[in-house]
Amino acid sequence: MEKPNKPIGIFDSGLGGLTVLSSLAKNLPDESFIYLGDLARLPYGAKSPETIKKYAQQIMDRLIKEDVKAIVIACNSASSVFISESSYHEIPLFNVIEPGVKDALRHTHSKKIAVMATVATTSSKAYTKSFHKSDQNIQVTEIACPLLVPLAEQGWINDELTKLSITRYLEPILESSIDTVVLGCTHYPILFNDISFVLGEKVALVDSRLELEKLLRSQLLASQEGSQRFIKIYVTDMTPQFKGLVNKLLGDVKVDMFEVINL
Amino acid sequence: MEKPNKPIGIFDSGLGGLTVLSSLAKNLPDESFIYLGDLARLPYGAKSPETIKKYAQQIMDRLIKEDVKAIVIACNSASSVFISESSYHEIPLFNVIEPGVKDALRHTHSKKIAVMATVATTSSKAYTKSFHKSDQNIQVTEIACPLLVPLAEQGWINDELTKLSITRYLEPILESSIDTVVLGCTHYPILFNDISFVLGEKVALVDSRLELEKLLRSQLLASQEGSQRFIKIYVTDMTPQFKGLVNKLLGDVKVDMFEVINL
Repeated sequence: MEKPNKPIGIFDSGLGGLTVLSSLAKNLPDESFIYLGDLARLPYGAKSPETIKKYAQQIMDRLIKEDVKAIVIACNSASSVFISESSYHEIPLFNVIEPGVKDALRHTHSKKIAVMATVATTSSKAYTKSFHKSDQNIQVTEIACPLLVPLAEQGWINDELTKLSITRYLEPILESSIDTVVLGCTHYPILFNDISFVLGEKVALVDSRLELEKLLRSQLLASQEGSQRFIKIYVTDMTPQFKGLVNKLLGDVKVDMFEVINL
Repeated sequence: MEKPNKPIGIFDSGLGGLTVLSSLAKNLPDESFIYLGDLARLPYGAKSPETIKKYAQQIMDRLIKEDVKAIVIACNSASSVFISESSYHEIPLFNVIEPGVKDALRHTHSKKIAVMATVATTSSKAYTKSFHKSDQNIQVTEIACPLLVPLAEQGWINDELTKLSITRYLEPILESSIDTVVLGCTHYPILFNDISFVLGEKVALVDSRLELEKLLRSQLLASQEGSQRFIKIYVTDMTPQFKGLVNKLLGDVKVDMFEVINL
């Protein structure tokens, strides 16, 4: 995998994946990134595996044309479809499910873990399968939370109504001995405080980003010293909502190029 | 427009338009219908006018191949893009904005009207323009309600949390002299009771379906007597959510054919 100067490709249906780009760009300062957000067809979380697969392949074909050295599927719904693939046309492929599973396994004592995710992800049972590959005794509860993506995009953050919705989804597990909850959608870190408030202090709330970063660090060589890093963002549609949230999510990560493309 | 046996084409990004199909199928029992739901790319409400236009044209081209005698755009976001077109490739085109406007004008005394709709629809200002074409003195307040489609699809109907969300959106107008509110999205009739509860009895709540039916009745000839009506549904993706809601929304309307297609 020694292809130093090449960028890492990252994609999502929309802006959730920007939480992944933001985190990787901060923590891997020598790497370049190309982000592709499929806004024209977002969200993926309510679509079928066949449709998600078709869209993801179109995106990955495009990223390969941009000569990426690796591809990060920064969308759990799309990750669930490619969970058993470690490469795509010989380009190393990283999903956001397995790193979250690894992190959750480190946190749990009760071996009872819940996963909050989209309908596409929970229907695939990708989390349950992935946990059981490591430990058959883990009890996994997968909870579909379709309102959380629109709540995050609406910007109702640290908000009573958002906490009520989260409570509605988590009610069945609040009195259980589940000690670890996985944020199984890259939008959900935006609602970290709201979810954490509902779960209380005794439950560990994990997402994939920390482990993903470690994985990329161990498997990819950093760019050659002296070479300038760059960050490009491609979107398949431009909406006022995206414009408003992109800066908020990326913070002080500097974007060098921003372009609307057709796939 | 004397093309009796031909079906009427209806389309939407997803299942909202089924509220229109259901109503038209019940009230125009001699007409045949072909419904196309673009589930693979839903929802349209957060997309740009350019993208919505491209998708709608692909759908209308397909409906024309099916030899429809008219096309109903059963999606307000798509209607806002085609608001000034009365035909597409010589096929009469009906939107769901103008009928709602007409009905609202009949109800209002204060001449103060609010419209609840998606971001795409409110951004287009199609409702305000359409009201002002009839009466420049109407005061129109357009309110974007992005959470209502996911709430309707989640099935949280007659629900406290849904009422709270609606209250959040309508708060700025609740103490005003607005006496008429337009349901500016074909999903919203699903939440009719919740919205009506928040608005109270003094406010008229109108949607486009009644006027749309009258319009179709006056402009299209019913099918020849003795000819059998049929109802076909095409979708561009199949999801568990759609399967669950299609029967609920269509009630006892009998569907003769159901098919997943590519556009």
